[in-house]
Amino acid sequence: MAAAKAKIAVLGASGYTGGELVRLLLRHPRVEIAALTADRHAGEPMTKVFPHFAGIALPQLVKIEEIDPTFFDLAFCALPHGTTQVVIKDLAGKAAKLKIVDLSADFRLADPAAYERWYGHAHQAVELQKEAVYGLCEIYRDEIKKARLVASPGCFTTTSILALVPLLEAGVIDPDQIVIDSKSGMSGAGRGVRENMLFAEVSEGLHAYGVGHHRHMSELDQEFSLAAKRAVVATFTPHLAPMNRGIYATHYVRTTGNAGAADVHRVLADYYKGEPFIQLLPIGEVPQSRFVRGSNYLQLGVVADRAPGKVIVISTTDNLVKGASGQAIQNMNLMLGFPETEGLTQLALFP
Amino acid sequence: MAAAKAKIAVLGASGYTGGELVRLLLRHPRVEIAALTADRHAGEPMTKVFPHFAGIALPQLVKIEEIDPTFFDLAFCALPHGTTQVVIKDLAGKAAKLKIVDLSADFRLADPAAYERWYGHAHQAVELQKEAVYGLCEIYRDEIKKARLVASPGCFTTTSILALVPLLEAGVIDPDQIVIDSKSGMSGAGRGVRENMLFAEVSEGLHAYGVGHHRHMSELDQEFSLAAKRAVVATFTPHLAPMNRGIYATHYVRTTGNAGAADVHRVLADYYKGEPFIQLLPIGEVPQSRFVRGSNYLQLGVVADRAPGKVIVISTTDNLVKGASGQAIQNMNLMLGFPETEGLTQLALFP
Amino acid sequence: MAAAKAKIAVLGASGYTGGELVRLLLRHPRVEIAALTADRHAGEPMTKVFPHFAGIALPQLVKIEEIDPTFFDLAFCALPHGTTQVVIKDLAGKAAKLKIVDLSADFRLADPAAYERWYGHAHQAVELQKEAVYGLCEIYRDEIKKARLVASPGCFTTTSILALVPLLEAGVIDPDQIVIDSKSGMSGAGRGVRENMLFAEVSEGLHAYGVGHHRHMSELDQEFSLAAKRAVVATFTPHLAPMNRGIYATHYVRTTGNAGAADVHRVLADYYKGEPFIQLLPIGEVPQSRFVRGSNYLQLGVVADRAPGKVIVISTTDNLVKGASGQAIQNMNLMLGFPETEGLTQLALFP
Amino acid sequence: MAAAKAKIAVLGASGYTGGELVRLLLRHPRVEIAALTADRHAGEPMTKVFPHFAGIALPQLVKIEEIDPTFFDLAFCALPHGTTQVVIKDLAGKAAKLKIVDLSADFRLADPAAYERWYGHAHQAVELQKEAVYGLCEIYRDEIKKARLVASPGCFTTTSILALVPLLEAGVIDPDQIVIDSKSGMSGAGRGVRENMLFAEVSEGLHAYGVGHHRHMSELDQEFSLAAKRAVVATFTPHLAPMNRGIYATHYVRTTGNAGAADVHRVLADYYKGEPFIQLLPIGEVPQSRFVRGSNYLQLGVVADRAPGKVIVISTTDNLVKGASGQAIQNMNLMLGFPETEGLTQLALFP
Repeated sequence: MAAAKAKIAVLGASGYTGGELVRLLLRHPRVEIAALTADRHAGEPMTKVFPHFAGIALPQLVKIEEIDPTFFDLAFCALPHGTTQVVIKDLAGKAAKLKIVDLSADFRLADPAAYERWYGHAHQAVELQKEAVYGLCEIYRDEIKKARLVASPGCFTTTSILALVPLLEAGVIDPDQIVIDSKSGMSGAGRGVRENMLFAEVSEGLHAYGVGHHRHMSELDQEFSLAAKRAVVATFTPHLAPMNRGIYATHYVRTTGNAGAADVHRVLADYYKGEPFIQLLPIGEVPQSRFVRGSNYLQLGVVADRAPGKVIVISTTDNLVKGASGQAIQNMNLMLGFPETEGLTQLALFP
Repeated sequence: MAAAKAKIAVLGASGYTGGELVRLLLRHPRVEIAALTADRHAGEPMTKVFPHFAGIALPQLVKIEEIDPTFFDLAFCALPHGTTQVVIKDLAGKAAKLKIVDLSADFRLADPAAYERWYGHAHQAVELQKEAVYGLCEIYRDEIKKARLVASPGCFTTTSILALVPLLEAGVIDPDQIVIDSKSGMSGAGRGVRENMLFAEVSEGLHAYGVGHHRHMSELDQEFSLAAKRAVVATFTPHLAPMNRGIYATHYVRTTGNAGAADVHRVLADYYKGEPFIQLLPIGEVPQSRFVRGSNYLQLGVVADRAPGKVIVISTTDNLVKGASGQAIQNMNLMLGFPETEGLTQLALFP
Repeated sequence: MAAAKAKIAVLGASGYTGGELVRLLLRHPRVEIAALTADRHAGEPMTKVFPHFAGIALPQLVKIEEIDPTFFDLAFCALPHGTTQVVIKDLAGKAAKLKIVDLSADFRLADPAAYERWYGHAHQAVELQKEAVYGLCEIYRDEIKKARLVASPGCFTTTSILALVPLLEAGVIDPDQIVIDSKSGMSGAGRGVRENMLFAEVSEGLHAYGVGHHRHMSELDQEFSLAAKRAVVATFTPHLAPMNRGIYATHYVRTTGNAGAADVHRVLADYYKGEPFIQLLPIGEVPQSRFVRGSNYLQLGVVADRAPGKVIVISTTDNLVKGASGQAIQNMNLMLGFPETEGLTQLALFP
Repeated sequence: MAAAKAKIAVLGASGYTGGELVRLLLRHPRVEIAALTADRHAGEPMTKVFPHFAGIALPQLVKIEEIDPTFFDLAFCALPHGTTQVVIKDLAGKAAKLKIVDLSADFRLADPAAYERWYGHAHQAVELQKEAVYGLCEIYRDEIKKARLVASPGCFTTTSILALVPLLEAGVIDPDQIVIDSKSGMSGAGRGVRENMLFAEVSEGLHAYGVGHHRHMSELDQEFSLAAKRAVVATFTPHLAPMNRGIYATHYVRTTGNAGAADVHRVLADYYKGEPFIQLLPIGEVPQSRFVRGSNYLQLGVVADRAPGKVIVISTTDNLVKGASGQAIQNMNLMLGFPETEGLTQLALFP
């Protein structure tokens, strides 16, 4: 007899990460989408906000208050930053056994002081914040398996933390000389309706934003510092590129001692040996964002600069999959005891 | 004990339809990709021509002559038009039991005279041409199940034949008043290296081509005429749009008698009842190509024009999936006795 | 001594047509931009809404009420449909000598009853509506030269009226058999902030809208009927394509008598002989929207369908130039006695 | 009486920079395009290779051998790297008074040894190489005015040299800590027909290339070292982005002494005071490539990083205008004694 499927709720199903969770969960053999919430769209069918689900049976959109959290095995929270912590505190209070994967930034910073500094207000669920596990499976796999609340990281941070943490841990690069130039597709900016996200504003152009000061830096600081066992403050500049999906991060690092690109490559090869979703290219080969589009893979490349001691590490992900919803499901798989790759083996859609 | 997997060869694996076949077959539970051919790239790994398969085990590319056709259960031919017929004649001669799904145009016209008229030379495998079944599962399902050679139709024709054949069969539209304005994404033009397909030539613009005379018309003529039981010569204009994937076909038809858009909608609803890959939208709703991107679904909509008796029927597919490789696998599923939807239920990648 | 420059006001300078007027007027040798209005942005510099004017001296944005209409020689109104008529009534009342080019739809329909039927409310400046001249220079040149108020047509209508009016006037096509399939770049949808205009919603896809009933049809009806000297109700379907600029209109027509594509081509050649902005291609050649991008040119092509008596006429413009602001300036040139092409000879930006 | 127009030849008119030269020269009031060459297209009209010149009178394309160099005042060479030096040697030998603006890389490196090292063969016109002036008007204006041969720099180098040379000259940044992450639109890769430039390969993705070693570095080295009066080896990584036009360069620098972003900004403001084509934004504001599209302007921005002593300098140009053909015409204006901005004041085409 087939095991009963896990009952899943997706809170915040009308944004891009919510839609992507639904796309992936619908073809996951061990789960059942049992509830979808979207406050402003409550009462509407999912096809109203995402017509690509035409013909697929899905629960109607409801308000968060309408669901009974004790009914579910796991809830994904794809809600706006800032408001999520209150929602999750409430859910956790009502349903002690409910597992939660949060896709917002609310529980990603372990230090309440850092949270307050970067977000401008005190955290409203400090106890849960302490309990939350940072949801990078390749780094925190064991902790995630036992976690009740996982703070699943976002696209910029996933793509750069996975590229540099092994190098910082191994001490092969200088923590004070990190420059990260990252480029994101437009879906990374969310589905909020703003003039500067209109097609005609964005197409046929490229620009940086949040230069010098961007909230994602706080997560880079946290994870880089943990890995280096000292404070690390990297330079990080995000850009928006005229494409739907993809994070493309170019990391400029300096090696320590006499290490070169080959050493950097070897550290990454060792660290990610057997990892199902990390595709380390042969040294000198350059990833392209289009080759991970729609997939949960991260492609990673290492190239020597012409100047000795300088190395360029490039990583790329699909911001909605490995950079958001795919990774969230990878976390779910660990938390519910499923095979880690279940429902996530779809290959990149190229061209 | 699990049944042995069917052994599959993909001939012509370095083009877009070849790559798409591999993408889909790799995640199909009942098949094994046992050979990949690509003449100019023979000896290279598949990742050389399609880097999105990095890390995936696949046979090396070989020349067609290097494979033994008796070894396979089914071969897909994703080879250029014109040369395919000789290759298939040879394969069929050597391996009588080999099933073949041909993605070229070579066997799509049942009438050798029509073939010669449209392609400018006599068909070189006339016996096989007679035997070949036109691979539109929704129309020729029973014939395909028994076929040895299926001529799987292309993107423009699939998208328009599925929209209009039910209406012509039912006699609800006038066969002499059909105008089809179709728009294709650039992958529909193939991977051939030509100046007019460069990004900078194509992006930020739109144009028609093959106006007044395009080889795909021959298939529309054949299938429309069969459906209407009289000669039908539709007006058809293909366009290229600056996107990777998608066929978007706008059909302008006139109803017969007193029929209106509701009648047109009802005929389609009846015809496609229970079809897994046809998503007929409620009357008045308009499909969008983005909502089938990466999937094997066809979205279909019917809207009344303001002038009585005029109806607009819109259909859209992903040209590489339902318009090529997905449909080819749908044919394979029928020919090998698998569930028709096996390996093809991936949902659209939106955004 | 150089003649004094004409003083120009641009009302509604923060939308795309307003920005395009400013771009073109800044390089027009006979005019001076003397005022710019934008209600919500009043008090801001123009570079706040259009950073591509960085470093260019321009008047600050003000509210319409802040300008004195007697101060200007001519005002462009790039304001929303519906509210424009009240604004213009007021301007005309205060400044009898002010010439006005209106880019909205408010004065394009000569018949108040037609206006009311299509727009759902009575026209609020009926006297001016009677006086307004439809601003297609190639058709109404003499009337425009004498006009005080010109209703400059929009992109879809300009592109299709210029393609078909000569043919309807000459009686060479059947007025009851017109199908127009038109595709627009996203800037044609304006700068309004709506979810369905976000980059990630629009990119990599194509869709029709307003199918069966679209307000632009009313202008097509008016001009086609005038040309044919009988009522004409064409079928017209607009689409949105993932590009910034461009209207690409494919017209399916049937000839009368024994006329063929050559006759259609000849009628157009005669009609547009010497016209500076109409580029009629040799028969059989197909326009591309990219070849008019950024320019005031309209490219026009005629191709015979394979079926006798059926002809495909294709026209393309840049929706913001010949389809909006360039045409408005062409009207201004006529109204102020300047050379018609002044300030408008910029060539297409390709690639 | 109007002065006679200068007679101009464009050698290599069928590539993107050639087409862009023609687009701009056609609207330049003081020149006449007297010859166009394109070897493979000799005998064809210019509209065959660039249909956006439909209806414009232009000389037919001829082979280089067919033109008499003594007939022209100035020749633009938009020919492939490597072969240009022989062509120019021949032209200069035949026509001592002919002025030449070369858009290739052949004469950009002053040091023959550096040329040989980077290009793998000895320079074949060493005397001319010594004479050639590097064509950055904002830096070498006086030399260009007197030059017979100007080596007009390309898009990546123009965009980054103009951003950093003033800072290196002023000693305000550390020459050993320069990281340049640059992104180019696809027209920057030229009109050569290669698979990796097809629309479907390129669209919806982003990638780096030439990582660690790219020929443009040699020009950066030359100009940076001249400015710093010592050897400078910057890290430079070019990327290709899915857009037609635009270079977007993000420069990561470290200040010297106690200098901060404000000092960096002030140095640039002083250096570029009164420059017609340099738009320095207020400190903290970020350029966008779309706001220079189609124009000869360079936008420049300075932002402080959160870490003291680190500054981000961003510059953007249209690669075909300020990054190629516009700059070449700016050089021509200086060489022929015309106003420097003549024919180059077209504003950016946005959206």
